[in-house]
Parts: sequence; C-alpha cells; structure tokens
Amino acid sequence: MKRNLLLTPGPTQVPPQLCEVLGRPIIHHRTPQFQDNIKQVVEGLKEVFQTKNDVYILTSSGSGGMEAAVVNLLSPGDKAIAVDGGKFGERWVELCQTYKATTIVHKVQWGKAPTAAEIKSLLDANPDTKAVFITLAETSTGVTPDVKAIGAVVKETKAVLVVDAVSGLAVQEIKTDEWFCDVVVSGSHKGLMLPPGLAFVSASPKALDLINKSSAPRYYFDLRECKKAQEKADTPFTPAIGVLIALVESLNMIKKDGLQNMFARYIHLAKAVRAGCAAIGLDLYPDPACSTNVLTAVRIPANIDGEKLVKTMRDTYGITVAGGQDQLKGKVIRMAHMGALDEYDILTGLACLEKVLHQMGHKFELGAALTAAQKSLNAK
Amino acid sequence: MKRNLLLTPGPTQVPPQLCEVLGRPIIHHRTPQFQDNIKQVVEGLKEVFQTKNDVYILTSSGSGGMEAAVVNLLSPGDKAIAVDGGKFGERWVELCQTYKATTIVHKVQWGKAPTAAEIKSLLDANPDTKAVFITLAETSTGVTPDVKAIGAVVKETKAVLVVDAVSGLAVQEIKTDEWFCDVVVSGSHKGLMLPPGLAFVSASPKALDLINKSSAPRYYFDLRECKKAQEKADTPFTPAIGVLIALVESLNMIKKDGLQNMFARYIHLAKAVRAGCAAIGLDLYPDPACSTNVLTAVRIPANIDGEKLVKTMRDTYGITVAGGQDQLKGKVIRMAHMGALDEYDILTGLACLEKVLHQMGHKFELGAALTAAQKSLNAK
Repeated sequence: MKRNLLLTPGPTQVPPQLCEVLGRPIIHHRTPQFQDNIKQVVEGLKEVFQTKNDVYILTSSGSGGMEAAVVNLLSPGDKAIAVDGGKFGERWVELCQTYKATTIVHKVQWGKAPTAAEIKSLLDANPDTKAVFITLAETSTGVTPDVKAIGAVVKETKAVLVVDAVSGLAVQEIKTDEWFCDVVVSGSHKGLMLPPGLAFVSASPKALDLINKSSAPRYYFDLRECKKAQEKADTPFTPAIGVLIALVESLNMIKKDGLQNMFARYIHLAKAVRAGCAAIGLDLYPDPACSTNVLTAVRIPANIDGEKLVKTMRDTYGITVAGGQDQLKGKVIRMAHMGALDEYDILTGLACLEKVLHQMGHKFELGAALTAAQKSLNAK
Repeated sequence: MKRNLLLTPGPTQVPPQLCEVLGRPIIHHRTPQFQDNIKQVVEGLKEVFQTKNDVYILTSSGSGGMEAAVVNLLSPGDKAIAVDGGKFGERWVELCQTYKATTIVHKVQWGKAPTAAEIKSLLDANPDTKAVFITLAETSTGVTPDVKAIGAVVKETKAVLVVDAVSGLAVQEIKTDEWFCDVVVSGSHKGLMLPPGLAFVSASPKALDLINKSSAPRYYFDLRECKKAQEKADTPFTPAIGVLIALVESLNMIKKDGLQNMFARYIHLAKAVRAGCAAIGLDLYPDPACSTNVLTAVRIPANIDGEKLVKTMRDTYGITVAGGQDQLKGKVIRMAHMGALDEYDILTGLACLEKVLHQMGHKFELGAALTAAQKSLNAK
C-alpha cells in the first residue's frame, strides 16, 4: 500500500491516462498509421519548443540528444564555449572534449548562473567560436540562466546557441525562436511526463548550415538523416514506438492545459515548496536571483545526514526526492515540481519531508512547512 | 473491431502480460529498487545470449547497439571485414566506413549466406583485421549464415567476431560463448517481445581488450562507461525505464518456456508458413540451405503487385507483414514468426494472405495454404 510518488528531476510521474496508452499493443512504425503519429508529435513539439524550426526525434535518453548536437555541429578542432556550473554543464564540456572540439570551459560557481556579459566577453575574445553550450535548468544546482539575454548576445556572432532544455522544456519558459536558440535539446521523461526513451533536437537555419558543413563522423545521431526521414514522416532507425504514440496524447494534454498556464502552475508549486522549506529552516541552495522553478534545491541542516533523509523518504514512505551530487552529496535535497504533479502532491512531499526530518532530530514545529505551503498555494 | 496482428520482423507483438507491465507507473532509476531490475535483466540476458560475458544495456534502437560495437572496437584506420548480403549487412558497412575503418566489404548475393571458407580466405589475406561483422538473421532476405563455423575461423585470428543478432536473439540458436562470438548485439523489440527502446551488447575478454585500446571518440555509446556503471547495477545515462522493467518479466517468460523450446516453436511455425506458401505457389526467396526461421520471405507471382498486397492486408484487414526492400521492393513479402505468436496467429496470417491474393486474381484453391500449414503444424 506504499505510495510511489516521484518528486525527482526526471523521470517524472507518468499520469494514468498516459500509462494507459503505454500499455496498449504497439503498431508497426513503417505504416501510414504510425506516420500520422510522427506528424502529430512533430507539430506538437514545435508548439512546446515555440519554434518554426525542425524538431528531430531520436531514440535515446536526453544525453543522446546532447551528443547529437555536438557531433552534428562541431568538426574536430572547432572552437566551442561550454558553460559548466553543474553536472549537466559538465556533460557539455565532456561531450565537446570527447569529440575533439577546442573547448573553452566557462566555469561558473555552483548555485550561480552564467551571464550574457560573460558570454559576450568570451565571444569577443574568440570570434571563431562555432557554438555556445548552456543549460536551461541545471538540475544539479537549481539554477537557470537568462537564456533570452544570452541569445541576444550569441545571435550577433557566427556562433550558434545550443540549449540543454532536457529538464526545462514544457516546465519553464523557453522561446526557441524569439530568444534565438539555434539548437534546443529535450527528452520524453521530464516536462513531457513520459518514461525515458526519446530525445528531441531542434535546429535553426543557422544550425542546419553548420550541420551540413560539419566533417565529424556520425551515423545513429546524424541529424541530416533525421531531416531527410522526417520529410517523409519517418525516422532513420526504429523509434521508441510505444513512447512516441503516448507522446501524441501527452502533447494533446499540454495543448489543452495551455503552455503558459503550465508554466504558471509550476511557479505556483515552486513558491509553495520554498515557503514550506523556509518555514522549517531549510535554505534555498541556489542564488534566488537565478533559481529555476523546475525544482527546489535546499540545504540540509549540518546535523542531518541528507543521504539518509532521501533514503528514508523513499524506502520507508515511497516518496522519491533527489539528493545532492558531487560536492553537494548529503548536503542538499532536490524536490522537483514538474510533470504530472498538483498541489496535493507537493503537500504530500513536504509532509514526508517534515516527518523524516522530525524523526532525525531536526527541531521545528510539525506542520510548519505544510502551513506555509498551504498559505502560499491559497494566496490571492 | 479490426485485428492488429504484427507478423513483421520487428517490432513484434507485445503480449498482454507485458503490455500490463508497460502501463504501470514508473520508478526512479537511481534507486535500489531499480538496481534490482538491472541485476535481473543482466542475469536473464546472459542466459538468452548463452554467455558468461558482460552484456551491456543501451537506450537506443538496435542500430545504436551496432554503432556501439563499431565505435568501441575500431580506431580510425583499423581494418574490418563487413559482410553485406542485405540491408542489415549494408548497415555494418556504412557504420565501419562512417567511422573511418579500412573496410573490406564482402558482398554476398541476396538470398545467399557468407561461408566460413570465404571469411577464412579474407582473414588469411588480411591478418591485420581487427573485427569481422556479420548478421545472424538478415531479415531483408531471410538468410542466416553458419555462425558457428565462422566463429571457429575467426577465433584462430586476432580479429573479433561481431554478430548483429538484433532480429535473431531468443528466436534462433546463437551460442555466444560456445561459438566464439565476441560481440553480440540485440534489441528489445524482436525476440524479447517488447517495444523498441533498448539495445544490448555483449563483449568477450578479447573484445574488451580492443575496446580498452580503441582511440575512437565515444560518449553516449561508450562501453567502458557501461562496464563501470554495470558493476554498480547502474547505467551511465537514464535508461528506458519502462521497457527495462518490462524486460524482467519478458525474460522470466522466456526462462519459463525454455530457450530450446522457443527455438523449436519458431522452427515449427516457420515450417508451417513455408508449407502454406508453397501450396499456393509462393516460392521461398532465400536459398533453403541458409534460410532463417525468424521469418519467411517468399516471391510474389509476377502478375501481383507485392506492395499493394502488403498494404491491403494491413490497411483493410489489420494484418501487418513486411514487403521487400530495395531490389526486392514489390517482389517478395516477408512474414515473421517471432515473438509472442502461436500457430493460430500463423494461420490467421496465411488466411489473410490467401484472401488478398485471391482478390488480386492469383489462381489457387482457397484453403490450400491453410490446409498445408495445418498438416505441417499437426504432423507427428
């Protein structure tokens, strides 16, 4: 009878109506029936990406989509700027270095965001830069940069702006075209509320130009082949059929809710979680000026073992939140508020957090987090 | 009320008990609960691969697994022999060439199999060959080579033998260890009866040695990282959680049925389909001496449009078989007998084939294919 609630920054909860679709018998992918699904998915993704650019479908996790961006845009020796302010920024660096790009690593203190001014000065000093890699929602730290301002800087150069929006898409605002994001990468298992298995990559004309010129070898992740196939409502290789069919329904749900309403809902949930955490003495980890609403990362009191806290919430009570990674191991917990969650799920998460912190000896008035969150949720 | 029967060489039918698992809410992948699933999957896969080697899990289609084999085994410039006797052999060639291997293409006439003697003479002439790439069940032509004999030849050299068993694993015999197959690649959506989304790659000590020495850049498909992660019952990147959890159940079903019983069942079904086709004048396309029991490829009479036949069976009657590819377009149909199929499904497929051929003007006695298949199915 134990609850199974995912308050994690991916995978997120799969709502029952999508579970139902995932449990249906599958169909063959080289059929007009499936082509119809591909067309609907591409149209729906373009709306969520807020783009007129192509959006390609890959069968992989989000990191496969990130690899696709790197191997399609950069030839060995090309110069790239990769922003590293957490685990996912680090992944851009590793990818660029693995594929032999001349990589300028822009290290940002964990909890802080890179600024447009910093990117501008790096681009001024390196006018031969081919691509700038950033992260929309750096879930290891809870940070989001000002993508719009960075886009305005990058668009004045020859470089393309590549945004890892694996965790941010359909959760927080990203205007691919208006903000001049040339390549945006996402996945099925975050804001799109499905199991992992599909990645998505958008490409602007400026990006397509680089993609066509790049000499880097690529096959499974070759976006040129994706483009060709998609013109026939096809994919170069067998796609994750089950997830793709469910994605049609997920995109319909998002359309019905309205993207802006969803963003507002996540902000609403994030505020409540933060109010709740503050009421029991848990401080926000990232600089509040650049914190993402995708999740809340809070510091754990020094006398509490953060790893044990996460483990007990999950293994004893069935509520899964994320712990800290690397330098933050045991020091923060990260409670996501994205995907198919409502305010009662958030209150459930806070109630469990209160319960376990109480058991572990942290001093606060039981109910304080719930009360603060409830007041935030019902504020005018 | 239209039937949805997949008699295609991937994806295959997903049986109801696996659909049920796929429709369950998912769990987080960095948890002891999920680690337990990974352990069970790895153990179960080793039994199906008939190996003591590591078997790594990738989130991709089967072609991603093939790419993993190439980029992990071969450094640019390394010599490889790739057997090309159909669409999937061609994929090995394209992968080897894309990643700059010095590729010896061993062209085999469609419908024929490469022989161990041919491989031996190529290896004798090219003692610096690093890897030999073959296909267990070349589904474009219906051919299977003598993998055991080829393994015996390759093991005497420095080269590793790499087998694309995407379509063959758990359907026809492949003894990874006994036959000296250093790397075997497969996927979730064929003999394992699940939707596409996962690929599997086994690696012998001889292969691991090459993998560790290779200088080719790789990240998403880096098998060294897979090995490290798997030692902690983990994967380097977020896996296709839903499919992986269902795979535990699929592997249990296979274990309960018994691998040898399953192989016998597929042979039994293949014989019946071939008897049925022969009875209505459809000749087997591949050389019978090397035909795989994974599917039956038969020639369509010259006066019948094979593409229309496939389309009508699928769109009017809901029975999906595959048509011919490339040079065989419109000239053959391919009816798979793998995955969750029984003799009644086979009879259903033949009944629909009879119906549409009859409508299209092919002359034969209605019921002849069914009768021949029924006799084959019930022969002592």
